[in-house]
Amino acid sequence: MSHFMAEFMGTAILILLGDGVVANCVLNKTKGQNSGWIVITAGWSFAVLLPAVIFGGISGAHFNPALTIGLAAIGKFPWSEVGTYVTAQMLGAIFGAILVWITYLPHWKETEDKAGKLAVFCTGPAIRSLPSNFVTEVIATFLLVFAILGLGAQKVAPGLGTMFVGNLIWALGLSLGGPTGYALNPARDLGPRIAHAILPIAGKGDSDWGYSWVPVLGPIVGALVGAFLFVAIF
Amino acid sequence: MSHFMAEFMGTAILILLGDGVVANCVLNKTKGQNSGWIVITAGWSFAVLLPAVIFGGISGAHFNPALTIGLAAIGKFPWSEVGTYVTAQMLGAIFGAILVWITYLPHWKETEDKAGKLAVFCTGPAIRSLPSNFVTEVIATFLLVFAILGLGAQKVAPGLGTMFVGNLIWALGLSLGGPTGYALNPARDLGPRIAHAILPIAGKGDSDWGYSWVPVLGPIVGALVGAFLFVAIF
Amino acid sequence: MSHFMAEFMGTAILILLGDGVVANCVLNKTKGQNSGWIVITAGWSFAVLLPAVIFGGISGAHFNPALTIGLAAIGKFPWSEVGTYVTAQMLGAIFGAILVWITYLPHWKETEDKAGKLAVFCTGPAIRSLPSNFVTEVIATFLLVFAILGLGAQKVAPGLGTMFVGNLIWALGLSLGGPTGYALNPARDLGPRIAHAILPIAGKGDSDWGYSWVPVLGPIVGALVGAFLFVAIF
Amino acid sequence: MSHFMAEFMGTAILILLGDGVVANCVLNKTKGQNSGWIVITAGWSFAVLLPAVIFGGISGAHFNPALTIGLAAIGKFPWSEVGTYVTAQMLGAIFGAILVWITYLPHWKETEDKAGKLAVFCTGPAIRSLPSNFVTEVIATFLLVFAILGLGAQKVAPGLGTMFVGNLIWALGLSLGGPTGYALNPARDLGPRIAHAILPIAGKGDSDWGYSWVPVLGPIVGALVGAFLFVAIF
Repeated sequence: MSHFMAEFMGTAILILLGDGVVANCVLNKTKGQNSGWIVITAGWSFAVLLPAVIFGGISGAHFNPALTIGLAAIGKFPWSEVGTYVTAQMLGAIFGAILVWITYLPHWKETEDKAGKLAVFCTGPAIRSLPSNFVTEVIATFLLVFAILGLGAQKVAPGLGTMFVGNLIWALGLSLGGPTGYALNPARDLGPRIAHAILPIAGKGDSDWGYSWVPVLGPIVGALVGAFLFVAIF
Repeated sequence: MSHFMAEFMGTAILILLGDGVVANCVLNKTKGQNSGWIVITAGWSFAVLLPAVIFGGISGAHFNPALTIGLAAIGKFPWSEVGTYVTAQMLGAIFGAILVWITYLPHWKETEDKAGKLAVFCTGPAIRSLPSNFVTEVIATFLLVFAILGLGAQKVAPGLGTMFVGNLIWALGLSLGGPTGYALNPARDLGPRIAHAILPIAGKGDSDWGYSWVPVLGPIVGALVGAFLFVAIF
Repeated sequence: MSHFMAEFMGTAILILLGDGVVANCVLNKTKGQNSGWIVITAGWSFAVLLPAVIFGGISGAHFNPALTIGLAAIGKFPWSEVGTYVTAQMLGAIFGAILVWITYLPHWKETEDKAGKLAVFCTGPAIRSLPSNFVTEVIATFLLVFAILGLGAQKVAPGLGTMFVGNLIWALGLSLGGPTGYALNPARDLGPRIAHAILPIAGKGDSDWGYSWVPVLGPIVGALVGAFLFVAIF
Repeated sequence: MSHFMAEFMGTAILILLGDGVVANCVLNKTKGQNSGWIVITAGWSFAVLLPAVIFGGISGAHFNPALTIGLAAIGKFPWSEVGTYVTAQMLGAIFGAILVWITYLPHWKETEDKAGKLAVFCTGPAIRSLPSNFVTEVIATFLLVFAILGLGAQKVAPGLGTMFVGNLIWALGLSLGGPTGYALNPARDLGPRIAHAILPIAGKGDSDWGYSWVPVLGPIVGALVGAFLFVAIF
């Protein structure tokens, strides 16, 4: 399998499972409606863990342009492949979001809340304050990338390191996801936002493009900080 | 132990634990009543994980006719054994459902909700739309089989691969279980539905046979798609 | 460390953590009040897991007379040690319950519900029907012992087998704990019941001795069934 | 990396994730508001687990003056390094708390509850009874240190021992955290309390210095008891 295919498939599964758990919690009449933050964060944790196990040996399982750029910035990934990876991640994220829309097809028109329907696809701030929201995404993504590098530097039983990455995603959601919904990943946010804009979702509202730069730039800045700090102190 | 016995026992334990957790959440006056989607999905995750660890080395721990058929279709399982496996899975599922009925015996007559009592045994759609419900089961079972094959292709510490399969089941419930209750498995659904039809459950309603083909055919189609896609790209 | 000390300490920790999580959920004004079945079952899972890891290499980490007797019945444990083990388990359980009482000391007089205070110490049926309650304990403990033996027969990475036992305890609570609160273990139930009877707990009610034989005999019968079935089919 | 840096960074991440999850549950308008005890305890579990994996090989991942002192008292850690470790832990805890304040910046002025805002930073008793609160912290920290030593003495697959320590933290919160919020760690409590006192938090109340000695002295006493008991019986 090519790196492109691994990143495409992995990111698609990431979004199918990740946006899927939000759909289950937010849309009307689902079996998991209003089942809370533990469900959301567990869902996203497994959404990263499972494709990371499956595709890690092929592409490194980035699924995240901020991680790809952060690794390239510290020389742990070739800049020449960044374009391929980011393209695959964006297309995979859009494709995954389309699958979520199909999986939950009868539920869109049963849901009145336009903001809730958008929240299935992409993040939005709990309190709109763009500079603060940006800083929150920087801090959370800094920790994501710093910890991925730190976890990856340990010698543990094969497969256990990926389990710890899954735990890391769970932790970031539980602890730092409160203000912005922890995008941490430009593809995770922008890809599904594009899907939201183009899909004929029943009764959808606007795609909140005014916020869309925060979960793109914040994670990239945070990833750079995390990657350079890792190099500086480890 | 024969393959038949392993598939029979494993599927019985799968249903005892899986339908058991639904009983605990849905029936009246239980200790876990209304304890929510995290409980349901954790219960089903362990319901697969534990017999998979115990019987995996004997029969491969399918417990699922769709998986058995999917593996046979891509040449990873002999067609000549499919009949034995599916028979054992169906009988095990019926037997497991009977044990759930006995375990929760005083609670049936204390529960008025006929749909809830059926939900202990088998799945039903959140919004009845059979074509959509079918597609949801196809997508979720596609991911089940694709990911089982993908996880199985990795070199991880012994036992950890099965843990990831348990995580996969948890993920599928959290993220894709919202519209149909994630049957993913014809035996898991049809076996207990048969048990529901024949057992003298206090105050039971009908067994919703009109829906019963969806969680049989949907998973089989999904498993075939997942198995062939795995072969195509890995 | 002697086998006696390991079983005593291990069972004390089991009850300190296990009865502790019930105290946190049931007593008034705690930080975890009414936090639900996922908290209860997670707490009991770790309550078994942690001492099992710590003391498993010394005594085998039974912490449960039913398991000790079941293993002895199939020749996997010497009958001559059964008395020592059961004595250590009972004393450890009583001691652990005393520690729970001390840990939550200011909360007893703030809690009016006498049944709730008893529930911290020992199990009681959701619907009182002693023959059914007995059968429920038999089925759940059958699965406990059968699965412990089945899990123990697998070759997994060191320590992972104990993790699966922790998952098993979680599963049994989630799925089969609804009708009786899953004693599964005579020492776990009778030891703390004795502690409840003798401790000067503020505003306590009676210790429900009429029920006390169910979580003693049920688990023993279930353990014997599980142990013999394991021998018969594996 | 120096021991100082590892303890500083590790404790900062511990508090960023640990106090972060409390912020998410307690502050107004967050995505995880009122998501309950399972979220709080899972968050703290990962808050210990992740830096323990990352920094364990460098400094031993104490992140806790009580643990450092307990280990020194039984000769498992040089007294000459205690000052360095405790200083790093205290500074790291203060720095982590500052990051939490920044991460949740817009939420402080939206939250009226002054006690809730303090609870993000440090622990407080559910029922104020200082002698009892002290004993609760002693018991819980005794078990923390005894179990860390006991878990550390086992031969398990590399990395799995740290996972069990994460489970231990989860267990202590679930089962023994009800009365005092399980400080277990003087730096975890005093460091963020100092941060609360000095930061310009919108609408903050007092820092409850009257209670502050309990989560400092209780854990130290408990750690000493746990460490010496471990030496005595293992």
